[in-house]
Amino acid sequence: MTATIALLTDFGEQDVYVGMMKGVINDIAPHAQMIDLTHNIPPGDIAKAAFELYRAVAYFPLGTIFLAVVDPGVGTVRLPVAISWPERVCVGPDNGIFTYLLAAGGEPTAVELTSSTHRLEQVSNTFHGRDIFAPAAAHLARGVELEELGPTVKELFRFPLPRLELIEGPLVKGEILHTDRFGNLITSIGVLRIEGDDVLLEPWLPHCPPARLPATGLRLRLPNGAYLSISSTYADVSPGEAVSYIGSLGLLEIAVNQARAIDVLPVTIGQEVVLSYKG
Amino acid sequence: MTATIALLTDFGEQDVYVGMMKGVINDIAPHAQMIDLTHNIPPGDIAKAAFELYRAVAYFPLGTIFLAVVDPGVGTVRLPVAISWPERVCVGPDNGIFTYLLAAGGEPTAVELTSSTHRLEQVSNTFHGRDIFAPAAAHLARGVELEELGPTVKELFRFPLPRLELIEGPLVKGEILHTDRFGNLITSIGVLRIEGDDVLLEPWLPHCPPARLPATGLRLRLPNGAYLSISSTYADVSPGEAVSYIGSLGLLEIAVNQARAIDVLPVTIGQEVVLSYKG
Amino acid sequence: MTATIALLTDFGEQDVYVGMMKGVINDIAPHAQMIDLTHNIPPGDIAKAAFELYRAVAYFPLGTIFLAVVDPGVGTVRLPVAISWPERVCVGPDNGIFTYLLAAGGEPTAVELTSSTHRLEQVSNTFHGRDIFAPAAAHLARGVELEELGPTVKELFRFPLPRLELIEGPLVKGEILHTDRFGNLITSIGVLRIEGDDVLLEPWLPHCPPARLPATGLRLRLPNGAYLSISSTYADVSPGEAVSYIGSLGLLEIAVNQARAIDVLPVTIGQEVVLSYKG
Repeated sequence: MTATIALLTDFGEQDVYVGMMKGVINDIAPHAQMIDLTHNIPPGDIAKAAFELYRAVAYFPLGTIFLAVVDPGVGTVRLPVAISWPERVCVGPDNGIFTYLLAAGGEPTAVELTSSTHRLEQVSNTFHGRDIFAPAAAHLARGVELEELGPTVKELFRFPLPRLELIEGPLVKGEILHTDRFGNLITSIGVLRIEGDDVLLEPWLPHCPPARLPATGLRLRLPNGAYLSISSTYADVSPGEAVSYIGSLGLLEIAVNQARAIDVLPVTIGQEVVLSYKG
Repeated sequence: MTATIALLTDFGEQDVYVGMMKGVINDIAPHAQMIDLTHNIPPGDIAKAAFELYRAVAYFPLGTIFLAVVDPGVGTVRLPVAISWPERVCVGPDNGIFTYLLAAGGEPTAVELTSSTHRLEQVSNTFHGRDIFAPAAAHLARGVELEELGPTVKELFRFPLPRLELIEGPLVKGEILHTDRFGNLITSIGVLRIEGDDVLLEPWLPHCPPARLPATGLRLRLPNGAYLSISSTYADVSPGEAVSYIGSLGLLEIAVNQARAIDVLPVTIGQEVVLSYKG
Repeated sequence: MTATIALLTDFGEQDVYVGMMKGVINDIAPHAQMIDLTHNIPPGDIAKAAFELYRAVAYFPLGTIFLAVVDPGVGTVRLPVAISWPERVCVGPDNGIFTYLLAAGGEPTAVELTSSTHRLEQVSNTFHGRDIFAPAAAHLARGVELEELGPTVKELFRFPLPRLELIEGPLVKGEILHTDRFGNLITSIGVLRIEGDDVLLEPWLPHCPPARLPATGLRLRLPNGAYLSISSTYADVSPGEAVSYIGSLGLLEIAVNQARAIDVLPVTIGQEVVLSYKG
């Protein structure tokens, strides 16, 4: 059995925290293949972690175990959990980090990680990633059943989903969600696909209905009132010019050719952006 | 045979140095599983490397080969060595990087890596990690005996261990050893365990005797004379407040809730801290 | 079949881009072993990527698949390609990233990655690393023939090679190519080997002939007219002193003992350096 365990944490790469987790996994499940999603989530940023996890899961093999540990409340009341869908299993704190995956649907089974035979002998108050979550993921990779890890959890914690709203006009209201290494801005507007002369909105958040919008004249309004055209790629505009385009996840993104959008545009994370027609 | 090789270096992740080492290992021992401890040890910081290595080893499978290369004296007189305990093997420069592991006891066997058939054909003066240490680790992973790698080394280099002193009172004197990615401060005081109403000191450094200290009233004196209470986790205090707690290695650590202790407290690495009673 | 895929990108480690690529590979070729060269190439720096890739390839097993994605022109006219030599296969954009490898000779076969059965079903305009290159590398790792991936490409793009010139005197003119994590400067002068009392120049760039230079009196002239002696290692000089030495790739490098050469010497990337004799 060759299971894959994908890891996402905010532990960084300066210390040996991630290495310890991998040692624990390797000890319990020597044949598990470990793949890093990232360990550079800003410390404690559960919303960013939830988003990045959500972006990545679809690209992994069926049955992948996702070990996601951004856990500012470690040692407090939040539960350690494992959540199982037919497509994948997630292990981590019940603090909202699985919000998008839970919103995406399915009927997952969740358990609290209480089984003392499936954690390290000594459990610290500050590093459940190593002492509880890594062993649980490793035992699952070895074929242990979810139910052996602890009792069922009925209600899982979710934070409020980002704004994404379809309004007659038509207008799609969303917000600036995140920035990436290149300084590009990722909005909540999507998932978008081009089909012929139309842009299809296939909402990735369940509170927004699908829509079909004629592509001609569509543009994105920034918080300062400026409008960006929608291009197929950020190489379409001149150096220094801003552009909006459908990014690799299908979300509308904002880039400045050969510059960092987050640095040169008057926008910040959380602000509203609106997809609309020239007026 | 599926051996694990754990890697710790100061080569960073900007360049392909680590990748080259892994290529060499993969060429010699295609089935070895490689796990990164960290490659972001501050350049040349042997003491930090020794500490991080020591923190991590216990979490790896028996028989793991630790390849530790922080080697500011590469190309000079320090010996390239492999050191074998029943629990693990270490490969790296004999410059103090194995100090804590050697202090922890056991009766290891060590050899100097002189065998020309177990290094690359061309050995540079500046990159023994790739040319000598990685091949040695890979050959060990394939089952080559330690003795084939070179002649026995009797005396290995160790740097002075950190302060950790038990004084009648009782007082435990230690020092601030390191900081981590979250800005938390790790002290030399430990290994600590709670047992009922007592805190047990099970020294991780051999020059400090064990002790049993009543937990009530215990606190940590900072270099500036301030005292911190001992909490079970850093989430126990208000945002901005400092706290001392038993960290994931069992060492006493200092954190500031939702801030970086190293930035906001008047302390630096190497300063003395004292565990004592109110009064 | 246990193939190795080595990855080099400019995607950084903040986001999950690299993780997604690895998920795609793991899904298609579960037994492929993935090794990171680096993901921290400065964004869009094709020249640095080409150099780092070239430095690393020789240390990997025969047959390794190199997946190199620094792709500022993603979504534009540059072709996605796979290039096969007897020693290795490369997959990535045809934008110059394989310049050094192509200059090094051999008679590679190249194809354009057009086969729709060997890419993801939905191909974005902005992330061919995940949608085209990772699937191609994974299919090759599973044993798919290069020719199945698309039609042959005759002419591949190469950027101009760095300066490296042998002049009567003898003088070897080169340039400062790159800096590494330690701030050391890597020049284009090499590949150098010591043989007895001579330094052998075995050019790594095809436009420079080989030469044999007596070692005595050889030194390196910096752009500001200063001369550095050639030492065997950077530990040969006093702290703060600059030195030139043959680096781990065989190229002449410049270091300052216990400091960052790039910060303390009056030199920049691209400037000319000359290997010559005193006098």
